[in-house]
Parts: sequence; structure tokens; C-alpha cells
Amino acid sequence: MNILIFCEHHQDKYEPVSLVYPDTMHRTLGSIFEGNNVRYATLDDINESITEEILADTDVMFWWGHHKHNDVPDEISELVAGAVMKGMGAVFLHSSHLAKPFRRLLGTSCTLRWQVTPDLSENLWVSAPYHPIAQGIPAVLNIPHEEMYGEPFDIPNAEDIVFMGWFSSGNVFRSGVTFKRGYGKIFYFQPGHEEYPVYHDEVIRKILSNAASWAKGDVRREGFDCPNGSGI
Amino acid sequence: MNILIFCEHHQDKYEPVSLVYPDTMHRTLGSIFEGNNVRYATLDDINESITEEILADTDVMFWWGHHKHNDVPDEISELVAGAVMKGMGAVFLHSSHLAKPFRRLLGTSCTLRWQVTPDLSENLWVSAPYHPIAQGIPAVLNIPHEEMYGEPFDIPNAEDIVFMGWFSSGNVFRSGVTFKRGYGKIFYFQPGHEEYPVYHDEVIRKILSNAASWAKGDVRREGFDCPNGSGI
Amino acid sequence: MNILIFCEHHQDKYEPVSLVYPDTMHRTLGSIFEGNNVRYATLDDINESITEEILADTDVMFWWGHHKHNDVPDEISELVAGAVMKGMGAVFLHSSHLAKPFRRLLGTSCTLRWQVTPDLSENLWVSAPYHPIAQGIPAVLNIPHEEMYGEPFDIPNAEDIVFMGWFSSGNVFRSGVTFKRGYGKIFYFQPGHEEYPVYHDEVIRKILSNAASWAKGDVRREGFDCPNGSGI
Amino acid sequence: MNILIFCEHHQDKYEPVSLVYPDTMHRTLGSIFEGNNVRYATLDDINESITEEILADTDVMFWWGHHKHNDVPDEISELVAGAVMKGMGAVFLHSSHLAKPFRRLLGTSCTLRWQVTPDLSENLWVSAPYHPIAQGIPAVLNIPHEEMYGEPFDIPNAEDIVFMGWFSSGNVFRSGVTFKRGYGKIFYFQPGHEEYPVYHDEVIRKILSNAASWAKGDVRREGFDCPNGSGI
Repeated sequence: MNILIFCEHHQDKYEPVSLVYPDTMHRTLGSIFEGNNVRYATLDDINESITEEILADTDVMFWWGHHKHNDVPDEISELVAGAVMKGMGAVFLHSSHLAKPFRRLLGTSCTLRWQVTPDLSENLWVSAPYHPIAQGIPAVLNIPHEEMYGEPFDIPNAEDIVFMGWFSSGNVFRSGVTFKRGYGKIFYFQPGHEEYPVYHDEVIRKILSNAASWAKGDVRREGFDCPNGSGI
Repeated sequence: MNILIFCEHHQDKYEPVSLVYPDTMHRTLGSIFEGNNVRYATLDDINESITEEILADTDVMFWWGHHKHNDVPDEISELVAGAVMKGMGAVFLHSSHLAKPFRRLLGTSCTLRWQVTPDLSENLWVSAPYHPIAQGIPAVLNIPHEEMYGEPFDIPNAEDIVFMGWFSSGNVFRSGVTFKRGYGKIFYFQPGHEEYPVYHDEVIRKILSNAASWAKGDVRREGFDCPNGSGI
Repeated sequence: MNILIFCEHHQDKYEPVSLVYPDTMHRTLGSIFEGNNVRYATLDDINESITEEILADTDVMFWWGHHKHNDVPDEISELVAGAVMKGMGAVFLHSSHLAKPFRRLLGTSCTLRWQVTPDLSENLWVSAPYHPIAQGIPAVLNIPHEEMYGEPFDIPNAEDIVFMGWFSSGNVFRSGVTFKRGYGKIFYFQPGHEEYPVYHDEVIRKILSNAASWAKGDVRREGFDCPNGSGI
Repeated sequence: MNILIFCEHHQDKYEPVSLVYPDTMHRTLGSIFEGNNVRYATLDDINESITEEILADTDVMFWWGHHKHNDVPDEISELVAGAVMKGMGAVFLHSSHLAKPFRRLLGTSCTLRWQVTPDLSENLWVSAPYHPIAQGIPAVLNIPHEEMYGEPFDIPNAEDIVFMGWFSSGNVFRSGVTFKRGYGKIFYFQPGHEEYPVYHDEVIRKILSNAASWAKGDVRREGFDCPNGSGI
């Protein structure tokens, strides 16, 4: 598989995040896919690392953004959304619910309720045990420290709700949801606040590995046209 | 509106449930719909109180069952399911996830995880604030005592998830979900353990009132046939 | 109801379209809603006739575009999409499958197959006879002259497929489909090529009248925010 | 893959069907899966050929019934439905829209409009070109002779509409639709009237081969229970 991982690579340059992800967040995610062809993109190099050619050669793209959504050029967002519609898989992580290409593909505001406090924990429940992304995943995973994301989550109705999150603050959330847009499969996954070592967790890494296998498309198309004629 | 309310009327004959619902559970539910034509059915009279004629004259049926699902004759379950497919609205409450007509209409096992302990509480969150059933309902309702129902909930993917439940036991649940079967609308609503005064709560009663208004169909059909001919 | 009708009002200024719609296409559509408050918008006045204030005061907007999608400013498209997400109903007609706000809300390319020949006819079938938009509509309507729109139609899976189109060219199409985005309901309806008197047909007019009643929302919201805190 | 093919094996014993399927209909379908472990079941041996043990050892079951739905014992229908809910894939062919296990799993009447005349032809359109079942399938397949099945089709909204049928009688149909029930994937496929050589067609055979690969589940479960306790 050809994997492309975009992270802002802003906060993980500095403490305290750099202490959690000393090898950067994007390389920590990339190490899930050892043996595959993994490429990286960050805000530092986004115009060179996310191009139409690279996307056409990518099976599944991961996207992690949090504080710098507006630093992503609209043209890049359009390229990513277009690649998904052509058949590239996409996994949007954590605060990427507000990432430009995610909102572009879903068509809604993707807003939610949130809270960060040091003692907040999450139980991540499998709600679709039949789903490929849930295979090998325990019925519930306790994440000792996580940012709370809560309902209502302003998304179109998901195809499948693979995970649901319980938060010690008293909130609930559709924490793992799938969508289709054109030829492309999309998975949104809520865990991954940068101050906590979520992407070091073996269960989380297994989920993301499953997600890549699931999101890899069956077929790609070249572009979008409205052919004239009956086609018969 | 013509409302028909079925409750087992078994446990609420005896303490402690009769102390919570001294006027019976079905009449407590029925009092939500004052000013409408409300009829009742219980296991004591089910063969007379649930007939094809009565169902044909019912806009919305409520169903509460818990321990006596098998005492409902298969023929009654078929009548109810058929009436829904013809356009009768149906609201299935609490343990009615295992009621014969509910499973018949959904086509799955409708199993879930559960727990009863004295100190278990629920936060009921609105996850579809746009939905007619959620109008006038606060973003979150704390139910101080409730039986826990937890994921995974083995239902087909719902049309809308109107409510999601958070339980102090650490569990989450799709607590208010809608379905369509044929011409009929279906709402499943999790709160309502018989030992707790859930159906006396004004917010819960408003939800059930909204549910009836929503579930009332636009049109009824007479039966199910496969017409021969192109129909043009 | 407050109805807002946008038509390009380009082709219907000239023959042959002006012969079909001598009173303009938008006023022909508007006459469906006599007794309601109907406002109009065209490409001639779009910056004054489609504003945030007008949209906030509109229950349901109709949109007909065909050849001039790019003449709609991006800002107007964003306003319309935002109003839908806040709860305004929207009905997109015919070639508006490529209208900016429609694609913006759906998130896909919305491409399809098409053909115009003088002798092409359509049978419009009701595939969701339970749906409010289908009430009072015959099982099948023959439209003697219509532009063919054919599958594959690159849309996200619809909530309901109310109508399906059969074309004498040998093609099929999901001709009436519903979606939700945020608080807003969306109906796409395929018939309405400008050279044929489709919007003079009484059945078509009944469908559009039903669509407006259905699309009118239950509630509006002010904006899109991500509230901080558990909300409890 | 372990494939189990049920056909009534009633009409194909006699002319004219035996002339179309001299090797029987079930063996004609079975020959699609050469190299796999294919087992057969007919009405002649249904109590021995469809057992809980055999179903537990089946990856995907095909079901073709037309005139003898009532000859299938209810217990067999329950076994099949239960196996699907546990993760067995199921492909229901042609008139099996009225087969007991199909209606049991979908929860609706599954009625439709129909017509048989010698000159009726179908165009089978791919409406979900991204779907695994559509891979390698041309955009449209003309089936020179086929029974017409027309809308409205009384099914719950499908997960994906992979194929749509156009009939020379002027009708349309959702001819290839997918569902999930529990852990099991379901595909309904309309073509296959017994008097026409549909299952000899190479494109149709490729569709059914794809369907089997798609329907094979990721995981099986043992049974249906409601575990007590929070599970944490």
C-alpha cells in the first residue's frame, strides 16, 4: 500500500507535545505501516508533498490537523477531496473534523462539543463488531487521557458507526464513523489529542491499520465528466 | 390521534413497581396523550385489545414489554408488524428491543449489553437536534436511576439517531433510533426501567409526545400485493 | 411559507424557451405557491436577491440552473449552503445537480449521463409511495418530452429515493432524492428541461408543492460553533 | 470459499425450463464457483441439505425460489436467517424477493410489480460503479428476455444500489441492492427468470462471482445473547 500521512507538524515541534512524540506525530503514525510505502506531508512542505500526482499514487491518506486548518491552501483541500472522489481512501483523525477537505467532502459544519481537562478519560466502544475496522479490537478500550468530543456532532448520517466514545465528563460521541464519497471511502476517528500518547497505543494502531486496509479502494477513476449520449 | 398502548401489566401489579406506577404503567403513559383517543392493551386481554380492526384504526402504537415477550402470541406480533408496514406508527420502549414485533420488523437479534444496579444513572444526549422528536428537549437529560443498556446493539443501521445514552457504568448506547418499514415509522426509545419513575418525567413525556406526532403516518395502504402488468 | 425561487433567467428571455415560459420560468414556478410569500432571484440581481437576511427569512428555496452555474458567485453559494445547514429547506431542480450550492452540500461531483433528442420521453415512477412528497401523485407519470439524465449519478446515497425515471433512450435515473445536511432538508428533482413545458404540468406542480411542505424545517439554528465544556 | 446453493429444483425438471437449464439451475449456478467447495440444496432434500451445521460451514449461500416459497419449512427459514445474522453471506436471486428468509431478514413485504411477456427486455445499469460487485462489469448489460420487476419495491432503504433495471415495458427497478443484518451481508439480484438463459450469461456470472467475494464475511459469531454487566 502507498500511504500518505499529513500532520500539521506544528505543536509537536515544541514541548510538551514533543515529549509525547519525540519522533514527531507523523512518523509515529507512519511506523504503523512498516513494510508499506509511507510518505509524509506537513504544513512546512504541503505544496510539494500533496500534489495531484502524489495523491493519484496514494491508496490511503491520513490527515491530522488541529490548530492550523486555515493554513491549508484551498487548492490543496480541493486536490485531496477530488482524489477521494476518484477512489483514494481517507482517514481523518481527531481535530480533523474541522479540516478543510473533511468538511468539503461531508458538506456539513462538522461542529461538536469539546473539553480538555487533565483527568478526562474515554471508553472507546465497538458498536459495529462486524466491521473490518473492528476486527481484532476489544469490545472496549479505556484511553486514560483524552480530549472530550461530544454530541451533537454535525455530520451527515454515517454509513457505519464503528466506535462510540464514553467520556468521564458525562459526554458521548460517534467516535469512529465511515462515509463514502464517489469512489472513495472515508473514516473519521476521534482519538488523538496531541498531548496524550494515544498513537503509541497498540490497540489504536491496530484500528488505524485496519482502517487503511478497509479504505483502500477497489477501483480508481480518472475524472468527473457528464458523458453525452445514452451509452447503449 | 388514535393511540394504542400495550404494556405487559405484569410487574406493575406488584410492589415495588406498583409503588412507582400506582396508576399502572400503561395508564401513566396514556396520560401523556390526554385529549386524544387512547386505548390500552395488556397481556390480560391481548387477544381482544390488539386486533386487525383496532390496529387499522390506530395512528400510533406504543409497546412496553420486559419479561413476558414469549407470552405474546405470534399471530398478534404478525398483526402488529403488518399494521406498521401498512402505515401505523410504532414506538417501542425500553426492553421491547426484544419484543416479537420489533425483532420481526428489524430483522436482527436486537441484543445488547445490560446491567441493573441501584446507583446507575444515565445522561440522555440529543444527537439529532434537527429531528422532530428532539424539539423542545434539552441538550442533555440526567436520569438519576436507569437500567444500563450498552453497545453493541444488534440493529440494522438506523435512519436517525436522535438520542445517545451515557451511563455511569462506563457504557454508551444508541438510546433513541428511528426506522422505516414499508409505510410505517418506528421509534425505539431506551429509557423506562419499571422500577424507576422514568415515565413520570416531564422531558421523557415530551419526547414520547413528539414521537407520536412524528410517527403518525402520511398515508395507509390496505395490504401487500404484487400487481401484474406494467401499470402504464 | 416564505418561498425563494432562483432561476438563471437567461435562456427563458429568448426563443424557443420564452415561448414555453412566456411568464418566465421562475414566475411559472412561483405560481405554484399562490397564497404564500414568494420572492424571486435571478442572475440579473443575485447579489441583492440572495442575501443572508433573505435566506434567514426563507422557509424553502428552489434553485434552477443549467448553463450558467459559474456565474453564481462563490459567496452566494456559501450563503445558500450555510442557510440549508441552519435549517432552510432546498429544492434543486433539473440541471442544478451541477449547481455550486448543491455540490457543496453533497460533497460529490454529482455528474451523470445525459442526452437531448426531440423524441425522448420519460416515465417518472414513485418508488417511495409512503413519502410525503409522493402523496397524491400517480404511480407513474409520463412526461412526453424530457432531457435524459442517466445513471451512474455520482451522489452520496440518498436518504429516500422518492422517484425513479425511465427514459425511452434505455436509461434509468434516481429522479427524486432526499438528503439532510445539518438542520436542512434537500430534495433534488430531475424533470424540468427548459425547452419542454414540464413546470406547467399539474402533477409536477403538485410534487413541487409537496416538496416545499416537506422541506420546511422544524427548527433553525443561528450558526455553527464548537461549544467548550461538558454542557452538563 | 464454501458455497451453498439452494434452488427449488421444481420447474427445471420439466420443459421448457429443462431445455434452458439441462444441467439444472442449481448446477448451472454452481459452475460459476469451480475450484471452490460448492454444495447444493433443493426442495427435495431441504431438511438434510440446509442444517445448522452446514450453514455454520458456509461462507456464502445463494437462494433461488419462485413458485414454492411456502414449501420451505419455517424452521429452515429461521436457520438461514440466523446464519446470516451470525455472519454468513447471502445472495437472493430473482423471485426470492418473496422467499421466507429474505422477508424475515428485511422485515418488509418485499412486494413489487411484475409482468411476463415474450418480448420484454431489460437494460441492467451499474449505478454504483465503485462497488466491489460492479468491478469488471460493463456500464450497461442488455438482457434480451427477462421477466419485468418494477417499482415500487417494498424493501427497507438499501445500503447500496449497485444495479438499476430498465425494462422495455416502461418500468424501472432497484435490481441489485445490498443490506446488512447483524454480521451478515445480503445481496438481492433481480435477473434470473427460469425460462430465459440468464445464468448462462458471462456478465451475470461475473456479477454473481463478485457478489460471493463481497458477501463473504470478515468474522462469525456463535449466537445472540444479552451479556449482563458493564463489560469493563
